[in-house]
Amino acid sequence: MKLLVKSGGEDVFGIWKDHFADLAPGLETHFWSDPAVAPEEVDAVMAWEPSAGWLASLPNLRLVISSGAGVDHITRDPDWPRHLPLVRMGGMEQRMSEYVAWAALSLLRGTRDFALGQAAREWRYKEVPFSAADRTVGVMGLGNLGLAAARTLQGLGFDVRGWARSAKQIDGLKTFAGRKELGAFLGGTDILLDLLPATAATENMLDAAFLAQLPEGAQFINAGRGKHLVEADLLAALDSGAMAGAVLDVFQTEPLPADSPLWSHPAVTVTPHIASTPGKREKAAYVADVLRRFAEGAPLPNVYDPEKGY
Amino acid sequence: MKLLVKSGGEDVFGIWKDHFADLAPGLETHFWSDPAVAPEEVDAVMAWEPSAGWLASLPNLRLVISSGAGVDHITRDPDWPRHLPLVRMGGMEQRMSEYVAWAALSLLRGTRDFALGQAAREWRYKEVPFSAADRTVGVMGLGNLGLAAARTLQGLGFDVRGWARSAKQIDGLKTFAGRKELGAFLGGTDILLDLLPATAATENMLDAAFLAQLPEGAQFINAGRGKHLVEADLLAALDSGAMAGAVLDVFQTEPLPADSPLWSHPAVTVTPHIASTPGKREKAAYVADVLRRFAEGAPLPNVYDPEKGY
Repeated sequence: MKLLVKSGGEDVFGIWKDHFADLAPGLETHFWSDPAVAPEEVDAVMAWEPSAGWLASLPNLRLVISSGAGVDHITRDPDWPRHLPLVRMGGMEQRMSEYVAWAALSLLRGTRDFALGQAAREWRYKEVPFSAADRTVGVMGLGNLGLAAARTLQGLGFDVRGWARSAKQIDGLKTFAGRKELGAFLGGTDILLDLLPATAATENMLDAAFLAQLPEGAQFINAGRGKHLVEADLLAALDSGAMAGAVLDVFQTEPLPADSPLWSHPAVTVTPHIASTPGKREKAAYVADVLRRFAEGAPLPNVYDPEKGY
Repeated sequence: MKLLVKSGGEDVFGIWKDHFADLAPGLETHFWSDPAVAPEEVDAVMAWEPSAGWLASLPNLRLVISSGAGVDHITRDPDWPRHLPLVRMGGMEQRMSEYVAWAALSLLRGTRDFALGQAAREWRYKEVPFSAADRTVGVMGLGNLGLAAARTLQGLGFDVRGWARSAKQIDGLKTFAGRKELGAFLGGTDILLDLLPATAATENMLDAAFLAQLPEGAQFINAGRGKHLVEADLLAALDSGAMAGAVLDVFQTEPLPADSPLWSHPAVTVTPHIASTPGKREKAAYVADVLRRFAEGAPLPNVYDPEKGY
């Protein structure tokens, strides 16, 4: 089986190749633009942001694997091969849970102010009024990542609730569903965590009217998709005091432009889209497993469902 | 019963008074230097850094409660009343665990570099080679705080081991004891967490020879006592590359002086001694409970043991 890899530049391809040589010995792995590989030889592709039309140019392609948890960077290509299984990257639950735990604790303790204090060589001691049990984290999106994050936050002592588009029964987790229950969900959420998938319905969903449903002093974590949030509306809510802080890992434009006001806002912590990034070895192991299942005709994990949009 | 409070200045005493009025209605609470209170009327003191000789000047004092987890700020007074029970502040396990979780995840993900990137408006994306399960956290000090921290870190997926002066059997935790096993403990520790009590034996214990027993690239969290660490030796280990990072909440001198090189070190995160600080209400509730037990003749929690030194 021949796999093309388009994930990071040619400089890191050697790392992928080594991991696959180790984890999937029968696999032939090539850099996506390798001129030695004829288009008709390609069986599978692992891709991040493939250019429009490229996947359609591979006549015998049988499987597409996204190099990230989302697939919108692939499905926005008008010619992406809809008849093929498209598999989302998996194995990110642990990494995402670690990030979410860090972000929620950062907001609980107000660590942004300590970072500003450190930069200014100032000892900004303050007493924190809350412990984890005093704060309700509202998790939007209850897929693999959202559920793992919810469990981790519960383990730290946070009160946790969840919201998803359709109703879900989850042991030990209070859940809300659909537009109808969104107000009740947001009204009792102190720290809102966005782990929704990227779909047309979620784009710019988190706007002024949405954020206004949170209680005063609420905080926000975006580890989902940057396109969900109207950044100017969050900034306005922070500046008015309606909201108290945010930890953002994803943005409307990435890398975040140097002139974005988010960088310097005293209540915003910026991280460079690293929330759920597994190491290359973990990704390669996941892809090797997907390819093995595919070769055996076994069911594939995390297959894109066009009806749901993720 | 008459309680004097010396914890924070006169400006915050009103907060204490309100909490105690609420939580211990029969208690008379006064600011420590209140001229209306005669020394012989005082039954109990809750104190932070009492000046030398002050406690001895209260002839009918029956109980001393430290406003922090440590008592060295009291026992360094040559005249402190050794015949009285000295109770350490409690109820800090949850707060400490939250801080330790945040600090360990900060080191795991290298968030110090993201903070520097944010200050410079730079998108410093990097792949993290490790997940929590790939890192061993070594917890020094297995009292209430150390044990709670160990459990929380295990819950996040870290591999955790513990060290204490004397041997302890703790379910599900690999432990090491005494000087003899210190080398083995340190040799397998990727992230060292100091939660040792402040005693003569632990002062400046973490010096160059000690840190050199950690594996290359190890990281360090100090949430115990600033006096344990020879700060210049940590800086030297970071600068040589022998160690990779540190999160420090406590320091030899506090507040950390503005000219300390720790503030600006690219591998050091500084927080202003906030790791385990409970809110005033949580402390007041703990003290109210101690006073109730004392009045009833019931056993007191966290009583200072001069043999152990904490």
